[in-house]
Amino acid sequence: MSQSPRDIEQLIDLMARLPGLGPRSARRAVLMLLKKRGAVMGPLARVMAEVAENARDCQTCGNISGAEICEICQDERRATGEICVVEDVADLWAMERGHAFKGRYHVLGGTLSALDAVGPAELRIPALIARVADENIREVILALNATVDGQTTAHYIAEALEDRGALVTSLAQGVPVGGELDYLDDGTIGAALRARRSF
Amino acid sequence: MSQSPRDIEQLIDLMARLPGLGPRSARRAVLMLLKKRGAVMGPLARVMAEVAENARDCQTCGNISGAEICEICQDERRATGEICVVEDVADLWAMERGHAFKGRYHVLGGTLSALDAVGPAELRIPALIARVADENIREVILALNATVDGQTTAHYIAEALEDRGALVTSLAQGVPVGGELDYLDDGTIGAALRARRSF
Repeated sequence: MSQSPRDIEQLIDLMARLPGLGPRSARRAVLMLLKKRGAVMGPLARVMAEVAENARDCQTCGNISGAEICEICQDERRATGEICVVEDVADLWAMERGHAFKGRYHVLGGTLSALDAVGPAELRIPALIARVADENIREVILALNATVDGQTTAHYIAEALEDRGALVTSLAQGVPVGGELDYLDDGTIGAALRARRSF
Repeated sequence: MSQSPRDIEQLIDLMARLPGLGPRSARRAVLMLLKKRGAVMGPLARVMAEVAENARDCQTCGNISGAEICEICQDERRATGEICVVEDVADLWAMERGHAFKGRYHVLGGTLSALDAVGPAELRIPALIARVADENIREVILALNATVDGQTTAHYIAEALEDRGALVTSLAQGVPVGGELDYLDDGTIGAALRARRSF
């Protein structure tokens, strides 16, 4: 990248840090931006600066939005007495794309991990326990990833919420919609068989 | 992406226009940026705004830089009497990475194309012809892509520069450094054979 002016080099370096882009594709992306300075690069820089400036973690649920309290927590129609616990904002977005859940969320910000020294206090678990009491929650739905750390965290939360009056549930495991048995791992087939329902 | 605030959605849409990113990877990239608002997103937005504001096409050669005349054209050590003609700024950067060429460049901004109605005046061909006379150019090196349009453009330029006192050359074709014959196309092998040299 010698000779391309310093700003452009710096831009390429920063773009290369994005997931899915390496040094080569970052260079290609910057070239495309340079060619569309007015139509794409200007607006992109503007919107990005705005989001970087305004985005903050919702004080209630940990979702990222432009306000102290996010849109979902502010939405009165979503005070259904149900909280869906997710690991990450990405998971919250995935749940929202499904349009199936009408309650509010709680974003943990990770999973318990002995290796990385992440304990309950590093996550938003104390805040979750407080919300269950304060907001009269009837059901806590654990939508954590089906990984070892995700399931450890789910068990910890289920225990911490015992005898606090809220039902703790978790997402069903089984065959994905449109999934073919031949391509499924044995664990999923086993889980789907154990959770079989009358047809 | 329902429920993610409007700015964030807009940011994802703009990021998805970058080459190499689709809607899904743009969302992942934006999430990563949101998590590193201070360390990555802020600086990236700042540098991008600066580049979008300052970048312009060099009035002499068509390279993109932060000044009316680019660094290469301003560099007196590069007044070697040689001009390397490239299709695009990306190709100029690629030549510079090779550290082999010490002269100045001329960026055409595309290739002649009858289908897309791109004629010599749409490219920087008249400017190139003027430079050859004004700058006392001894050699014009055509570093155009080995595509049909690239080679058509090369022939057009070679003809236009006939009898103007400058030698017109083009990059050698042959086996790439580190290349294996077994993986080369027949055209390249033929070209390498025709251009064989004494060992």
